[in-house]
Amino acid sequence: MTPLQFSDVEDAAARIAGIAHRTPVLTSRTANERTGAQLFFKCENYQRTGAFKFRGACNALARFSDAQRAAGVLTYSSGNHAQAIALAARLAGIKAAIIMPHDAPALKVDATRGYGAEVIVYDRYTENREEIGRRLAHERGMTLVPPYDHRDVICGQGTAAMELFEETGPLDVLLVCLGGGGLLAGSALAARAMSPACRVIGVEPEAGNDGQQSLRSGAVVTIAVPTTIADGAMVTHLGAHNFDVIRRDVDTIVTVSDAQLVETMKFCAERMKMVVEPTGCLGAAAAMCGAVPVAGLRVGIIVSGGNVDLARFASLVTQ
Amino acid sequence: MTPLQFSDVEDAAARIAGIAHRTPVLTSRTANERTGAQLFFKCENYQRTGAFKFRGACNALARFSDAQRAAGVLTYSSGNHAQAIALAARLAGIKAAIIMPHDAPALKVDATRGYGAEVIVYDRYTENREEIGRRLAHERGMTLVPPYDHRDVICGQGTAAMELFEETGPLDVLLVCLGGGGLLAGSALAARAMSPACRVIGVEPEAGNDGQQSLRSGAVVTIAVPTTIADGAMVTHLGAHNFDVIRRDVDTIVTVSDAQLVETMKFCAERMKMVVEPTGCLGAAAAMCGAVPVAGLRVGIIVSGGNVDLARFASLVTQ
Repeated sequence: MTPLQFSDVEDAAARIAGIAHRTPVLTSRTANERTGAQLFFKCENYQRTGAFKFRGACNALARFSDAQRAAGVLTYSSGNHAQAIALAARLAGIKAAIIMPHDAPALKVDATRGYGAEVIVYDRYTENREEIGRRLAHERGMTLVPPYDHRDVICGQGTAAMELFEETGPLDVLLVCLGGGGLLAGSALAARAMSPACRVIGVEPEAGNDGQQSLRSGAVVTIAVPTTIADGAMVTHLGAHNFDVIRRDVDTIVTVSDAQLVETMKFCAERMKMVVEPTGCLGAAAAMCGAVPVAGLRVGIIVSGGNVDLARFASLVTQ
Repeated sequence: MTPLQFSDVEDAAARIAGIAHRTPVLTSRTANERTGAQLFFKCENYQRTGAFKFRGACNALARFSDAQRAAGVLTYSSGNHAQAIALAARLAGIKAAIIMPHDAPALKVDATRGYGAEVIVYDRYTENREEIGRRLAHERGMTLVPPYDHRDVICGQGTAAMELFEETGPLDVLLVCLGGGGLLAGSALAARAMSPACRVIGVEPEAGNDGQQSLRSGAVVTIAVPTTIADGAMVTHLGAHNFDVIRRDVDTIVTVSDAQLVETMKFCAERMKMVVEPTGCLGAAAAMCGAVPVAGLRVGIIVSGGNVDLARFASLVTQ
């Protein structure tokens, strides 16, 4: 297979134009004062379905054949990819079935059902969602679009960083949250072409640094399901397609603690007036809490999503 | 004195350009589906200091003489105007003293001090802030810029609606929260000139409908300090300058309940991913909860601010 390249991201951008939102790039004087940097927040919490995942889902479904469209789409997801596939499928007139963990946030499960998708529940600590997905795909003839280990998903996700660079021009650092690696790989494709000197840095929760281990060892490392408030990053290993790009185009991977994620959620709510889910704070936390030195630099941050139960949000920001 | 007119708002816009933010106009498919309307949210919660008040403060200070600049500015405020004057004064190199109620949200008091202003505390249930203001202005020679009953403040606040109409073109209805009437009067000036057929509607808390009573009776009605979660609208009477414009240019005034404000705060956080303070939800609540019929119409909504203690926000959205 041809290695993924920036033109694949450009093709994705053309496919999803007019369907996905072009989200705003926000700045905060207070954040700049605290870090000594110029921070540019690409706010995918304002994306349709509340997260960047919609970009990849749209791009993948746009490439379905007529036969695939007729049989429907199947996926598994801890949440945001579920809603993304559900809405993208509804807009495209395609039937969708989503395999979701039993402890996914209620808001995400409800929203997925609200978009008209069938929800199939599994236990993320005892069952393997990839096996369930393969079995159901086989039984029903539906096409599986996994949440990150998929070329069209990676290229769709990369359009967020592409839009960011279009708006800011070249940057010194790009901070991207890392779960399965779709957003990070797609962002790296955009950065390498649009801002070649930019350091592309993945940020994952301290509790699950499989990405960091993988990049250091040169092969995908699998860990147990990490326990972290960043529910979008409770992933055991990077995708193979994602790792191919990450190994080639990403400079380094750092981690932040759950406490730092909470601090960053508070900052976003109090000073920037925006609701960001824990996973969505990974990139910002790396800059705000010092995991990456940013003073004096122009720094792009992908805020990946804002889907968090209000009760959970309230409990976290009052810790 | 010449009656206020739209050219005064245009002059204010020229004065504050490059100091105040041009805030985004957001839309929500879900809000549109629920109301059957096309809603345009002018998001002043993203304004500097977190509220529209910064516009009026900047405009007023920009007109100070050298002698006024040297002596400093004085004001009283339940919160957002305090921060607005404090930051505008700091940016203009002018000393500021702010008279704030003892029960103002801690976030607002801290932010005001953080901008370098002197904070003077009073009891809003037993003392009269206007008297305290006049006395201190006399003793210190400082110029009093009250939070709403002031021509330059009204015209500065009107620039938010002006920017909204610039972006949306003519609208059928404009919903504006109403405390002392600065934002409503300024918005009405903009609406009359830029969208003459637009119905301009003030929205105040059920607990304190002095504006509604005033518009009906044709004279400013004074009430006791209302008890409402909308702390920015805990005002006993409209300003005289504001009422002159409101009587002439505003179509009607409606009320919403605290429960409706909470519902709207939840909607804004959950679906639009934004933090809005209770007062800032007045306009949106009128549309979302049916106080104003909006189906089939193009509706502008001024979201006035986002300054709410996180603990209070958390407690309200989990009610």
